[in-house]
Amino acid sequence: MRRIITISREFGSGGRELGRRLSELLHIAYYDKEIVTEISKRTSLSEEYIRQITEQKPVMAFPISIGRSFYPIPDPLLDQNQTIYREQHKIIREMADKSDCIIVGRCGDFILRDLNPLRIFVYADMDAKIARCRERGQEDPPLSDKELKQKITKMDKGRASYYEFYTGRKWGDRLNYDICVNTSGRSIKELASILVRLAE
Amino acid sequence: MRRIITISREFGSGGRELGRRLSELLHIAYYDKEIVTEISKRTSLSEEYIRQITEQKPVMAFPISIGRSFYPIPDPLLDQNQTIYREQHKIIREMADKSDCIIVGRCGDFILRDLNPLRIFVYADMDAKIARCRERGQEDPPLSDKELKQKITKMDKGRASYYEFYTGRKWGDRLNYDICVNTSGRSIKELASILVRLAE
Repeated sequence: MRRIITISREFGSGGRELGRRLSELLHIAYYDKEIVTEISKRTSLSEEYIRQITEQKPVMAFPISIGRSFYPIPDPLLDQNQTIYREQHKIIREMADKSDCIIVGRCGDFILRDLNPLRIFVYADMDAKIARCRERGQEDPPLSDKELKQKITKMDKGRASYYEFYTGRKWGDRLNYDICVNTSGRSIKELASILVRLAE
Repeated sequence: MRRIITISREFGSGGRELGRRLSELLHIAYYDKEIVTEISKRTSLSEEYIRQITEQKPVMAFPISIGRSFYPIPDPLLDQNQTIYREQHKIIREMADKSDCIIVGRCGDFILRDLNPLRIFVYADMDAKIARCRERGQEDPPLSDKELKQKITKMDKGRASYYEFYTGRKWGDRLNYDICVNTSGRSIKELASILVRLAE
């Protein structure tokens, strides 16, 4: 049996840790930031720029149509967004073709839908997400709870818009996933040891 | 550790079977139709009537307020709805106080929220739900796929309205559950053997 797992996750919910732990338990590849690094190599765009682009809805320099006219207006910004998405699509396919793997985010569930992956959505209460972000301690200067909440909300909104733009599906809609797991108050290590059995 | 599990489920998703199997694996009580039977005993209303009432939003004989007046108008129908809900609430509390148990539907997750139950939401694709309803083979005369789909949609709409009326929460909103599981194409027996570990 091919074992492809895709993980969609709310910011701060521990989805990345869950993915890493599942990959260790299953001894299969794990791709997260590696996808960005690979796009960067192939497009000569910076990783930071790609990261920004792939977590929000494409911004267009001009509206797609003016009035009722559908005359195609060249839009360098949208073109670049789409180039990045195309590369990402190609890379994710290549990775999944090469071997069993876990893909975190980046519309993996949609891109690999014909391979029938195990699709996991990871979420948590806002308080739990704030606490997890604090544990990671990446904020410099430190953010207040209110600022952190705003950041989490903004990140998730960006992910939702990006996903919806490229897949036409609603991000977080349970029907797009095999299992949705609330990590609030739970050990990710323990969750991984249980959920791994869904892929065995 | 107290083990209380509440199961909310879409019609035809196999939530009831999952609950039964979990109760067998954990050797704990399982309450589903038993709740209706008990309400019936205590209120002298028929089980069939109670079943109808507890799966849809209360129907009011009169609007709650007329214009801007909040003068309380007696409404025998709403009174009876609320009597049933109060009995149900009491019975579910009694059951959970007595011993570890699994409660299927009936706002159990909300009623027992202070006991910190494991809250499972069970769902499936429409096709899978139609197939499961056919397997159960309860329809007499047999329904077409279209009719069955309408029935499933109506039942779920009723459950959602009932839940929202009494809890003020959105039925199926992932944040109200610890895990949401898609049973499409999966064996409920196998799922139960995995999910049971969340309660151990």
